Amino acid sequence: MARVINFSAGPATLPLAVLEQVQAELLDWRGSGMSVMEMSHRDKEFMSIAHEAEQDLREIMNIPAHYKVLFMQGGATAQFSFVPMNLLRGKTSADYVLTGDWGKKAAKEAGRYGKVNIAASSEADRYTYIPDPATWKLDPNAAYVHITPNETIHGVEFHIEPDTGDVPLVADMSSNILSRPIDVTRYGLIYAGAQKNIGPAGLTIVIVREDLIGQAAAGTPGIFDYKQMADNESMLNTPPCFAWYVAGLVFKWIKQQGGLGVIAERNARKAALLYDYLDSQSFYRNPVKKAHRSRMNVPFTLANPELDADFLKGAKAAGLSGLKGHRSVGGMRASLYNAMTLEGVQALVDYMKEFARTRG
Amino acid sequence: MARVINFSAGPATLPLAVLEQVQAELLDWRGSGMSVMEMSHRDKEFMSIAHEAEQDLREIMNIPAHYKVLFMQGGATAQFSFVPMNLLRGKTSADYVLTGDWGKKAAKEAGRYGKVNIAASSEADRYTYIPDPATWKLDPNAAYVHITPNETIHGVEFHIEPDTGDVPLVADMSSNILSRPIDVTRYGLIYAGAQKNIGPAGLTIVIVREDLIGQAAAGTPGIFDYKQMADNESMLNTPPCFAWYVAGLVFKWIKQQGGLGVIAERNARKAALLYDYLDSQSFYRNPVKKAHRSRMNVPFTLANPELDADFLKGAKAAGLSGLKGHRSVGGMRASLYNAMTLEGVQALVDYMKEFARTRG
Repeated sequence: MARVINFSAGPATLPLAVLEQVQAELLDWRGSGMSVMEMSHRDKEFMSIAHEAEQDLREIMNIPAHYKVLFMQGGATAQFSFVPMNLLRGKTSADYVLTGDWGKKAAKEAGRYGKVNIAASSEADRYTYIPDPATWKLDPNAAYVHITPNETIHGVEFHIEPDTGDVPLVADMSSNILSRPIDVTRYGLIYAGAQKNIGPAGLTIVIVREDLIGQAAAGTPGIFDYKQMADNESMLNTPPCFAWYVAGLVFKWIKQQGGLGVIAERNARKAALLYDYLDSQSFYRNPVKKAHRSRMNVPFTLANPELDADFLKGAKAAGLSGLKGHRSVGGMRASLYNAMTLEGVQALVDYMKEFARTRG
Repeated sequence: MARVINFSAGPATLPLAVLEQVQAELLDWRGSGMSVMEMSHRDKEFMSIAHEAEQDLREIMNIPAHYKVLFMQGGATAQFSFVPMNLLRGKTSADYVLTGDWGKKAAKEAGRYGKVNIAASSEADRYTYIPDPATWKLDPNAAYVHITPNETIHGVEFHIEPDTGDVPLVADMSSNILSRPIDVTRYGLIYAGAQKNIGPAGLTIVIVREDLIGQAAAGTPGIFDYKQMADNESMLNTPPCFAWYVAGLVFKWIKQQGGLGVIAERNARKAALLYDYLDSQSFYRNPVKKAHRSRMNVPFTLANPELDADFLKGAKAAGLSGLKGHRSVGGMRASLYNAMTLEGVQALVDYMKEFARTRG
């Protein structure tokens, strides 16, 4: 077996130690005589897996008791609908800050359930920066303010946590959750698809302040009503048990690494390694304003796009996978999620240097 | 490793050969250098897994080309909402036939989106039979007729495919899909949570006649709009990739067994073994009308319920797991899905005989 170095934007590389544990336990989870995939979600074995995962996540992220943690289905895209359905709470509008395609999609979907006010947008500049919060046109009567702290396609990331006063801040953290410590109390609601820093696709984490739930719009399906899910500990129906279990192993792995402080430091080093190289030459280019660059997703283009195919071919031969950029921006993208090692990034930089040397 | 004989109603036992293959491929899917959990859903490796699973399912179930097959999230419970949101198509009401708690829940949720007409119900007799279709009070203007061909809690199953004329028949087949050949063309829509006969929880299969889609109600979230999902081959957003992959292995396993004809015959033998024993004595009892008994879920009670705890304790010691009945009906329940072997059922009957002999 030769594992590749996987820079995919998501689903993405997972810690090898986690995968090895999943493999070892696959036919018989700790003497239960069955796979986690075969367990009733109501039995004590799976309940212990589920509770432990939630407790570990609460510990890692320092989530206060007055926040509910929900394990849902449907991905972040489902939340584009269910956030407004749950959080408009009789109000007429919500504020959205657009710093990439995902935020734009979220705003578009929300517009089907209420009025959307675009409080700020960097679309005119191809999402290459985060608009200064001082310039945001916030509505004090908005139901919430929605941001996308990290945009996977454009590679821009919030390195601040904006203050929206009494209006709850809602964040789609799909691509940078668990990449660094955050202050959960700055947010009314955080949601994240699992398939970057958490675990397998098919699981969505929602962390929501409990005073915001219980006023879902008529027509909100029961299993997407945050209050009903919270009251039923995310088991109103059968949850995505296996993904929940793998997520729990990832949370344990993060604890073993030393927590989010250590993870953040490692992520900063990985990103610096790649950005420092990008800034040292002119064969490759990253378009994002330095202060707003993502530590999770690093898009870059070759000065000569005719070399793109050769670059990817050579990368594959060197065991570097998933580097093709999103079709909407072209070029390349290296995703450096928690499970990507510094050695993996070094291997990429070494390959990039050699390619530039021989083809530049 | 000692695998138990797992009679859980769902999530449920999976074929050992499938689990062994999942285990073998867990760190490196066929030379790709990564786990299926780590693959981009847009890359050719996962696309081949996804397409092959759909093709195999179409082949096994003989699904005609004018039916779409969707791989969704949210379980059957989500479909309780999304069936009416998608299929009311401007009509005011739908007919529901209640033969157990799941059908009742489906009808209740549908009532939030339109008028629900209970065309027939066996609730007054504790769901111990299927009302004769000749007595159903069907509305010719109904948007659809909804049935639950197998009720997991009550252990009642349709052994006919009712004819509802021009009104599309909708079936929640969560607990008996793939247990026998069916005529898909008798149905307008079939849906099923994966966690019984298909694969891990977190995946939902929807099979829908294409002329019925494209008229979703306003407010239907994009990823639960059947038309949008069909147009995007179930990849409008990141699908539950790993569950989809395991489902594909289960479909291959069914083909290797000889298809649904062979599976159905085996299921009939398994169920007969248990029911024949139940009918031969009076220590245990099954309340369901013989012609309507489920081949998937066999609920039974002990004449003396004070022995329930001892029965379960002894069963566990004998390696028989998941036999506790649903709390709403009490007693025991043995689920005999496709992956349950005849030997497993024989072991249960042997245990039941011995328990009755020593404690009766």
